[in-house]
Amino acid sequence: MKGIGASPGIAIAQAFVLKHEEVVVDTSTVEDVQAQLDRLKVAVDKSREQLKVIQEKAVLELGEEEARIFSAHLMVLDDPEYVGQIEETIKSQKITADNGIKQITDQFVAIFESMDDEYMKERAADIKDVGGRLMRNALGLKEQDLSLIDEDTVVIAYDLTPSDTATMNKEKVLGFATDIGGRTSHTAIMARSLEIPAVLGLKSITQEVKDKDLVIVDGIEGVVIVNPDEKTQKEYLDKKAGYEAFIKELAELKDLPAKTVDGHEVELVGNIGTPKDIEGVLRNGGSGVGLYRTEFLYMDSDTMPDEEKQYKAYKEVLEGMGDHPVIIRTLDIGGDKNLPYLKLDEEMNPFLGLRAVRLCFVEKELFKTQLRAILRASAFGNAHIMFPMISNVEEVKQAKAILEECKEELRKENISFDENIKVGIMVEIPSAAVTADIIAPEVDFFSIGTNDLCQYTLAVDRMNETVSYLYQPLSPAILRLVKMVIDASHNAGGGKFTGMCGELAGDPHAALILLGLGLDEFSMSASSVPQIKKIIRSVNKKDAEIIAEKALKLSTEAEVKAMVDDELTKLDIKLI
Amino acid sequence: MKGIGASPGIAIAQAFVLKHEEVVVDTSTVEDVQAQLDRLKVAVDKSREQLKVIQEKAVLELGEEEARIFSAHLMVLDDPEYVGQIEETIKSQKITADNGIKQITDQFVAIFESMDDEYMKERAADIKDVGGRLMRNALGLKEQDLSLIDEDTVVIAYDLTPSDTATMNKEKVLGFATDIGGRTSHTAIMARSLEIPAVLGLKSITQEVKDKDLVIVDGIEGVVIVNPDEKTQKEYLDKKAGYEAFIKELAELKDLPAKTVDGHEVELVGNIGTPKDIEGVLRNGGSGVGLYRTEFLYMDSDTMPDEEKQYKAYKEVLEGMGDHPVIIRTLDIGGDKNLPYLKLDEEMNPFLGLRAVRLCFVEKELFKTQLRAILRASAFGNAHIMFPMISNVEEVKQAKAILEECKEELRKENISFDENIKVGIMVEIPSAAVTADIIAPEVDFFSIGTNDLCQYTLAVDRMNETVSYLYQPLSPAILRLVKMVIDASHNAGGGKFTGMCGELAGDPHAALILLGLGLDEFSMSASSVPQIKKIIRSVNKKDAEIIAEKALKLSTEAEVKAMVDDELTKLDIKLI
Repeated sequence: MKGIGASPGIAIAQAFVLKHEEVVVDTSTVEDVQAQLDRLKVAVDKSREQLKVIQEKAVLELGEEEARIFSAHLMVLDDPEYVGQIEETIKSQKITADNGIKQITDQFVAIFESMDDEYMKERAADIKDVGGRLMRNALGLKEQDLSLIDEDTVVIAYDLTPSDTATMNKEKVLGFATDIGGRTSHTAIMARSLEIPAVLGLKSITQEVKDKDLVIVDGIEGVVIVNPDEKTQKEYLDKKAGYEAFIKELAELKDLPAKTVDGHEVELVGNIGTPKDIEGVLRNGGSGVGLYRTEFLYMDSDTMPDEEKQYKAYKEVLEGMGDHPVIIRTLDIGGDKNLPYLKLDEEMNPFLGLRAVRLCFVEKELFKTQLRAILRASAFGNAHIMFPMISNVEEVKQAKAILEECKEELRKENISFDENIKVGIMVEIPSAAVTADIIAPEVDFFSIGTNDLCQYTLAVDRMNETVSYLYQPLSPAILRLVKMVIDASHNAGGGKFTGMCGELAGDPHAALILLGLGLDEFSMSASSVPQIKKIIRSVNKKDAEIIAEKALKLSTEAEVKAMVDDELTKLDIKLI
Repeated sequence: MKGIGASPGIAIAQAFVLKHEEVVVDTSTVEDVQAQLDRLKVAVDKSREQLKVIQEKAVLELGEEEARIFSAHLMVLDDPEYVGQIEETIKSQKITADNGIKQITDQFVAIFESMDDEYMKERAADIKDVGGRLMRNALGLKEQDLSLIDEDTVVIAYDLTPSDTATMNKEKVLGFATDIGGRTSHTAIMARSLEIPAVLGLKSITQEVKDKDLVIVDGIEGVVIVNPDEKTQKEYLDKKAGYEAFIKELAELKDLPAKTVDGHEVELVGNIGTPKDIEGVLRNGGSGVGLYRTEFLYMDSDTMPDEEKQYKAYKEVLEGMGDHPVIIRTLDIGGDKNLPYLKLDEEMNPFLGLRAVRLCFVEKELFKTQLRAILRASAFGNAHIMFPMISNVEEVKQAKAILEECKEELRKENISFDENIKVGIMVEIPSAAVTADIIAPEVDFFSIGTNDLCQYTLAVDRMNETVSYLYQPLSPAILRLVKMVIDASHNAGGGKFTGMCGELAGDPHAALILLGLGLDEFSMSASSVPQIKKIIRSVNKKDAEIIAEKALKLSTEAEVKAMVDDELTKLDIKLI
């Protein structure tokens, strides 16, 4: 069966088919609304009890960090917005508690899922999970317990919830295969983070497989084989051994620099969202943080995080990374990402609206609180400040002026900070790329955000499936803009550099071209670092330059991709 | 009093204060829903009778074209979507007829007004007008009759509806001044089209002025003076004479070419929406049509317009323009512009979604019907086809392949068409500008759509007031992209040219720079042609080139604007 390879690797084990009892919602109209509100309350209380038990167990078995997700779930249960809206709906529409839970949960999930952000997708999964638990409790349905798995197992499910992945016995679960989900679903993210092979979106795997069937999960090719014959088993055992040897080889690169055969070194660094993510960056041999998304601090809270709270988080990251550079991006919120305590107007085209630094100029105190926190933390490591959503040089000057205000305040208060803290911008708006030479004198570095840059340059919302085929990060237009930015930083002298923190930076198919164009820093999911390091260490910078020149002469992304595939084969570079 | 100068010129006359009786909606809950539905029906019938009378009168006094607006109003009354939703709301919410009318009208108006399109804004004004009439009829309120005005008059109003402007005695109304409205409101559009000076957005003019007060409306500066002293009257009479002399001077340029002092000629052409618009293009001395927006044909209809209907409209335009080139843009619909008979999904970011040629590739039969109609009409004039929303060269090839299919069909059917019909694209997506050199070999011309190009390049929805300050069409990024496109067309040889059909093309402050960058064709509202022609005829191409070079070296739009103002003063070029 063919699905989506969402986490690489090969697992061969017996199946455990996870079946949540089907939730059938009672859609009838009710007379006694109070009875339904009471049912809701019972379900909320029962769910809270269950979650507390799971949380305690998770803390013991998995540690504080892993158990945090259940604090998030408990927060959802205590969120007056969520439970309050369910109550409202039950009252105004005179419907059952389970129906009300379903409607509001679906609404919340749809909103969060529509956002192009890993954190928000996680949030959607959390709400779905809590909503499912509430509904099952309202309906008196039972849960299956994945912590009881005690043999090597491949878990087969319609989908996996955060509760499932958190409670499962991770020693014994060797692979996942699910009916639904794609590369950015919760299950995919968990599988990659647990380094468990996974194939998702198989549509009917739960129908095809029975408990104890022997199952092969090939997360590299996105294939699942049920009850394979001897020959196939042998073939996949070999493949598994080969893959594991390759991973081991990659792991051995950990402490080696990302240096080409002819001695050109680049920085391979990680994108992080919270202090806990630095462990993964260091484990994978990342030499810094190229993008610290600070939104998490703001979103994971019911009130504006104060300077002290932010300072502690930034300090923890900076200390954790030692001398390595850490690029802290200022708040990128607004548009499609809202904060509960910040009232923003709804916008017709949120991607073209009041986002990020634009919002920070309006909410100047919010901005200054963050800048002060970053400055104070800068005394404890190698901090860089990065402003998102810059469209022209005047905004850079405006942001720097506000930063200078904060520095002046701290000087007066005798609080120490890094006086030479480096300041850069995200290049994610086409105008910033086209005028990078005008902006360069004002900054120490650029970091190209390819996800947004592609969206604007190609006028494509990549989350919109009807047009996502036009989202082409390796198209000539994007490559030319990338070159403009890199050239502008180098031509400006003074050690200015260009990094990239969009998905393209971790794409093995882009690595040779980006290296050839002169990109100085590649920032990516930590788990991609070894693979990109391997590619960089396999080539000459000069050869990469020739490949980049070739790419710039081509007319379409398809031609670029074909050329790169060809070159990777010629260079005998193996990809996962 | 200072307001928005929405239509230039000076009027001095006595005031007529238009006061629609205030509509106060009864927001109570009702028991007898049927009685409210009956009230609605009576109001609909009465409004229909009134509109028929106004329509007949308008046909006699103003002609068929001007009277068309009331067919549109009658269509709104007969639109089951509109009246049906009012009925639904009355039933489901148990509210009064007038309240139901108000709620649904406000909803419809908000939707149409939020669209960045003159046609849609007109539509919003129509619905507002019909809704107001319905409400007044439901409440038994009277209308004031503007056709009774028989002395030279300045009309003072809160706002003017299409009914007001259509019924008023145009011989005697010399100016408008209103409390609300901006440059793109219905009143502004009507004032410019009637060539009546207007100042809008004065906030409280209806409070400040009484009937018979003497009023000066200065539509150039956006100023209204109530009961001026003798000296001021004299001053404005002189200003009026000066303005009229200038307009006369512009009018005398009508049949002269748009040629610089040193002999470089460009095309000044008009943007049109319907065949009736060609009269204005010719009257203003436009040498062709640079943008024929075909959406009108589709929107002004309850069903898909068939090939015959489209063919007739295109033929009428082509024949009306004689040998002059007419660039027909294929359907630019989708995203925020919907068709009632085409079911489109709602999109999170419509500007980055399934629009224009993207939609036409999906709805291939709709696309082919239009292409066949254009080809058939091409036998009768100088037609050019233009594809909107092109992001890469593959889409150009795809569109041309479908065009070739249509040509092949027509050849087989022995239907004549222009075998050498020129094909071009709108450059409105940044990637098309950045790769214009790759696309140039596939097209005969480019036309830069600056409105969308700015929105994408600067990541700004210009209709979003909180970020509209970032919408900077004269910013260095846009000027560089414009230059890339022009250079690509010229470097490709073979007489390929670049036009521009966004608002920038008719902006006097941009004219010198665009001329200097080598723009071949400027397409604009017909009424802007004389002014731009005057500027072009006042300068040397070489001097414009020097100004363009200067502009390209500046860092911000503010600097560019200041430089241009300076140059215009030096060249002693007078602007309206």
